[in-house]
Formats: sequence, structure tokens, C-alpha cells
Amino acid sequence: MTLSGTGRDADLFYEDLAPGLTFDLGVADVEGDEMVAFARRFDPQWYHVDEGLAAESAYGGLIASGFYTVSLFMRAYVDHLLSRAAAAASPGLEELRWTAPVYAGDHLATSLEVVDRGLSRARPGFGTVTLTAVMSRLGPGGDPEGDVLRTRFRGWFALRPDPR
Amino acid sequence: MTLSGTGRDADLFYEDLAPGLTFDLGVADVEGDEMVAFARRFDPQWYHVDEGLAAESAYGGLIASGFYTVSLFMRAYVDHLLSRAAAAASPGLEELRWTAPVYAGDHLATSLEVVDRGLSRARPGFGTVTLTAVMSRLGPGGDPEGDVLRTRFRGWFALRPDPR
Repeated sequence: MTLSGTGRDADLFYEDLAPGLTFDLGVADVEGDEMVAFARRFDPQWYHVDEGLAAESAYGGLIASGFYTVSLFMRAYVDHLLSRAAAAASPGLEELRWTAPVYAGDHLATSLEVVDRGLSRARPGFGTVTLTAVMSRLGPGGDPEGDVLRTRFRGWFALRPDPR
Repeated sequence: MTLSGTGRDADLFYEDLAPGLTFDLGVADVEGDEMVAFARRFDPQWYHVDEGLAAESAYGGLIASGFYTVSLFMRAYVDHLLSRAAAAASPGLEELRWTAPVYAGDHLATSLEVVDRGLSRARPGFGTVTLTAVMSRLGPGGDPEGDVLRTRFRGWFALRPDPR
């Protein structure tokens, strides 16, 4: 048995992650109290924590810390993919872009695409997979109205074990 | 008056951020309960939240979510630099590397270096500054014993206003 990211029996392996494949990582709701509590602890800049200054600024109100938004991405990635996948810890992100402000009450849909892969030379039994993800704000009708976050990163995934 | 990142009167402007300059962003202590609570909410992978599995693994115990570690970096950056600087919101990170596992009780020292800068064409009155940061774990004697996080990113900083 190979553990998934959440400790279950993995059913998604390196071989399953073919370039071009996309995954729907669901919709995350931005809860205002949590958004502001995160910023107070980790990113207490005025446009994240000072309601008065933010309201008078070009933002028109408090906006989320980019690290809160990327943390919501990570949760979506765990819930919808790593919980099933034979993944090892990530070495990092190759790129992270916050492309528009995020506000309390936003609904953010995330999609993930496999863009490249190759066997790992450093870690026998693993492959390296390059992925891109986009978070989009949903409009009143539930359709994406614009991106708020884009990232590109690599992950290690175990090869499917030989059947016994 | 130009606002700093935390809404104070800024005293650090684009002109002050000369390539080669380094900033000591202090030491962050990794508090175990907060580290695990963060992972339960945003990154519930077994090596971040399941004490039993983590203890039996090569990690030897729970390790921090990389997004928790980078959030500690952000707080250090706000406290020691953005609180004084005429900074605008960041467009993102060009690179983020988690280079070693982080454990509860770790003491992480952060240093920041200015690597490049240029006037912004898109935003008159601002310059774009490229920065790198390194978080290092301190050993028992208080000296750095190895890196745990490296990042490279750009930030916008306002030009110093003309004296009136």
C-alpha cells in the first residue's frame, strides 16, 4: 500500500498524470473573519487589516493577504488531488502570481493542469510532475469572471507499484 | 505623507533600496500548536497533521506546512521592513523553495537582500525592486545551521517625495 497525501491508500500515481490532463479543485469561499485573522497574524499590512484605510483606498475595502489566498489553493489541492495521490512533499513553487485583489465573500474556483513530467533521477521510484493552477473569482451567475491567482510548481509522485 | 505597509509615515523609499543592501528580519519561533492548527485548516497532509504516521516516517515527527513557513517569513518582512517602507501590494513570488523540513520549536532567522531595481514603466512614481530572502534554522548555540526556505520576488516601492 502506498500512502496518499492524507494517509489513505493512494489510487493516483505518476503514470496517471498525463500532460494536458486537468483537475477541478472545487470552489473555496472567502470567509471575512478568517481572512482578516490570517492577515493580523501573518501579514498585517493596512489594506489587509485596517478597514478604515482600506475603505478610503483604491481597493474600496479590505483585501486578502496573498498568503491566505494561496493557502486556500493548497487546501483545495489537498482535498481534491493529494488526498488520492502518491505524492511526496513539494520542493516549492516555480512561480506565484496574485493577479487581482480578493475580497471577503468571494467564491474562488480552482483548476489544475498537468503540463510536463519526467522520471526523477534523484529519487528512484518517483517522477517529477510540473503543474499549473489558476484560481478564478466566480461572478453572481457562478461563471468565472477573472483570475486572482496563478502558480506553476513541481511535485514528486510515486510510480504505480507492480501488481502482486 | 506616504503610508508605509502598516499605515505609518514611511521612511524607506525606492532610492534607499540599493542592490547589495541586506536586512536582518529577526528570528521567528515555530510554535507547535499553531503550526499544526495551520496545517489542519490549509494543508492537512499526514506529515503535517498525523503525529503517529509522522513519527514513524523519515521525518521523525510532524513538519510544518511550507505555507506556514512562508507565512512566518511574510510576518518578519512586514515587521522589519514593510512597516517602514512606502510599498505597494506585491505581484507575487518569482521562486519559492522549501529546502529542509521545519519542526515545532525551531527558531528561524530571516535575512533579505536587495538584488536589483529599476523604475517602473507601468506605475509612474514607483520603482520595482527584486529581493531574495533566506530563512535559516538556528542551532543550539544560536548560529544558523542550514536554510529551510529561499525565495525571490519583486516589490513596488514609491519614490521619495520631493521635499516641500
